[in-house]
Amino acid sequence: MNRYWWEQACRVPNETARQAARLRNAQLTKPSGALGCIEAVIPRLAALQVRERPSLEHVWIAVFAGDHGVAEEGVSAFPQSVTGQMLANFVNGGAAIGVLARQLGATLEVIDLGTAGALPPLPGVRHLALGPGTRNFTQGAAMDFEVCQRALRAGRDSVERAREQRTELFIGGEMGIGNTTTAAALACALLGCSPHDLAGPGTGLDATGVAHKSAVIERALALHAGAHDTLGWMQRLGGFELAALTGAYIACAQLGIVTLVDGFICGVAALCAIRLNPACRDWLLFAHCSAEPGHRTVLQALEAEPLLDLGLRLGEGSGAALAVPLLRLACALHDGMATFDEAAVAAKLG
Amino acid sequence: MNRYWWEQACRVPNETARQAARLRNAQLTKPSGALGCIEAVIPRLAALQVRERPSLEHVWIAVFAGDHGVAEEGVSAFPQSVTGQMLANFVNGGAAIGVLARQLGATLEVIDLGTAGALPPLPGVRHLALGPGTRNFTQGAAMDFEVCQRALRAGRDSVERAREQRTELFIGGEMGIGNTTTAAALACALLGCSPHDLAGPGTGLDATGVAHKSAVIERALALHAGAHDTLGWMQRLGGFELAALTGAYIACAQLGIVTLVDGFICGVAALCAIRLNPACRDWLLFAHCSAEPGHRTVLQALEAEPLLDLGLRLGEGSGAALAVPLLRLACALHDGMATFDEAAVAAKLG
Repeated sequence: MNRYWWEQACRVPNETARQAARLRNAQLTKPSGALGCIEAVIPRLAALQVRERPSLEHVWIAVFAGDHGVAEEGVSAFPQSVTGQMLANFVNGGAAIGVLARQLGATLEVIDLGTAGALPPLPGVRHLALGPGTRNFTQGAAMDFEVCQRALRAGRDSVERAREQRTELFIGGEMGIGNTTTAAALACALLGCSPHDLAGPGTGLDATGVAHKSAVIERALALHAGAHDTLGWMQRLGGFELAALTGAYIACAQLGIVTLVDGFICGVAALCAIRLNPACRDWLLFAHCSAEPGHRTVLQALEAEPLLDLGLRLGEGSGAALAVPLLRLACALHDGMATFDEAAVAAKLG
Repeated sequence: MNRYWWEQACRVPNETARQAARLRNAQLTKPSGALGCIEAVIPRLAALQVRERPSLEHVWIAVFAGDHGVAEEGVSAFPQSVTGQMLANFVNGGAAIGVLARQLGATLEVIDLGTAGALPPLPGVRHLALGPGTRNFTQGAAMDFEVCQRALRAGRDSVERAREQRTELFIGGEMGIGNTTTAAALACALLGCSPHDLAGPGTGLDATGVAHKSAVIERALALHAGAHDTLGWMQRLGGFELAALTGAYIACAQLGIVTLVDGFICGVAALCAIRLNPACRDWLLFAHCSAEPGHRTVLQALEAEPLLDLGLRLGEGSGAALAVPLLRLACALHDGMATFDEAAVAAKLG
């Protein structure tokens, strides 16, 4: 028996549906493979959704926000107060992800896991109050085990709400000043990389700022040196929103909902999820490769082939949201194109 | 005075609108540049559409079909009859571009410039009957000057119809068995490349097929060797649909309609358009880099930075259509996001 919910079994993709989708794709009026990545994703979606013709109409976007104690080391170009300020911007529809959710007809849920400074309750935001941000991980562990568990569970709770709404695609987003530092530190620990390879400009550090960020991570790695399991590293170096995303990705795989992973922080959460429960990998699609230099390394470690490469570095789930229309058009093509027989078009020469 | 319509002046992008869009973008609640290519395209669209907040709601897709005499050299994996058969599939909505046009709410126009074999008139298709395909360019010029002019004009006529419908984005697509051979030959002539670099598998040739295609182009280049201008090369090595696309791209720039260029054949048409009227370059956006190996070379020659790289090789305008939602979301973000002031969010430190 598994001790923890995140160790429990994931849904298994359905091979009959995958084969049926492949068969249909081969009969559509186009040269075989001519739609590249757009057609390659369909058999996979079919296997996950257990239907020959997959659909991604019902999209759920959950944005997880949290503050980071390490922000006091001066690792971000923005003040920490922005995390809380952006919560209001999310629910008021003025942030990028709000605009994108409206355009996609997606449900947008905003979850405040714990931000610095006293915030008045915001209508439309779920305030979970795990703490005033994590602790500064250059001085100790970012979270206690119990808090880390609550953050993981917050991700799963969102997925359970998404399932009630018949969600066909789950997108997790994040907001948290300092969270590229957190994600880089955690990825260094899990992948054995140097901070020089994974620390990047985030929201807009210059070269001096990036070097300082790298040195801060170096100090944290020295402080926490030792053999820790994934959860041990997450407690020590993680963030609330990163843990929630990790929980959400695993829950999606357990509950049978396709997930579209956004940028660098989400990529590191996906890495944590796969380390905690390797079978969840099947359920993760990767939307894009961002401008944050460490993202490419994380994607390579995950053997992920993202759809887009647009130089994005915003977070909030925005890069995943931008990829939704492509996936929906892929589904529409698979569903709506005529077969060679139906259209009386000659197939490829012998 | 210019002798030909395609030499006449193009509209000049508006720098005031470009600056206004830049200013607005800098105030939106995101780190500067965080939306990468998605925000970079907006000032350009603003300058072309002469408004601070551009819009791409009204999309016109014109698919130009034509046959190629060079198909008799066995350069395609599909029989030549497919060109005509696909015309019916376009207007019946079963082809990829038909599905995409429906999903985008775009107008789809299908133009038969001249196909091999006697086709009964198809409702919804404009039959221009320039000839039963071009002549085999390994034996002589593909077209007479007068026919080439009519093909160019067919592209412009479509753009004029698009303008009547208040089109904000023009997409040209193509269909024609043998047309990657035509495009590769023409690009070799214009760029001074070897057929080895530009001949590719097209709709699905194997390595032997590609080598044969390359040899066919080599023979054509030897036959037509000499100093010809762009139009001279187009007559000798071009295709009806390639000439129509060239005319369409120039007309868009003259009439002030933004154009989204599709794949390899469209890329070569864009190259021809720019050689005939360099100022039209401003009006051309590039949707994607396709799987056809020569496409990358053509894009480099055009200094084009396409939005997508999805391994597409279908044509019909499908790759450009797939990029439309991204551009529309870019416009929606620019229009709908809150500014730092509106959202009371702190701007960058220092």
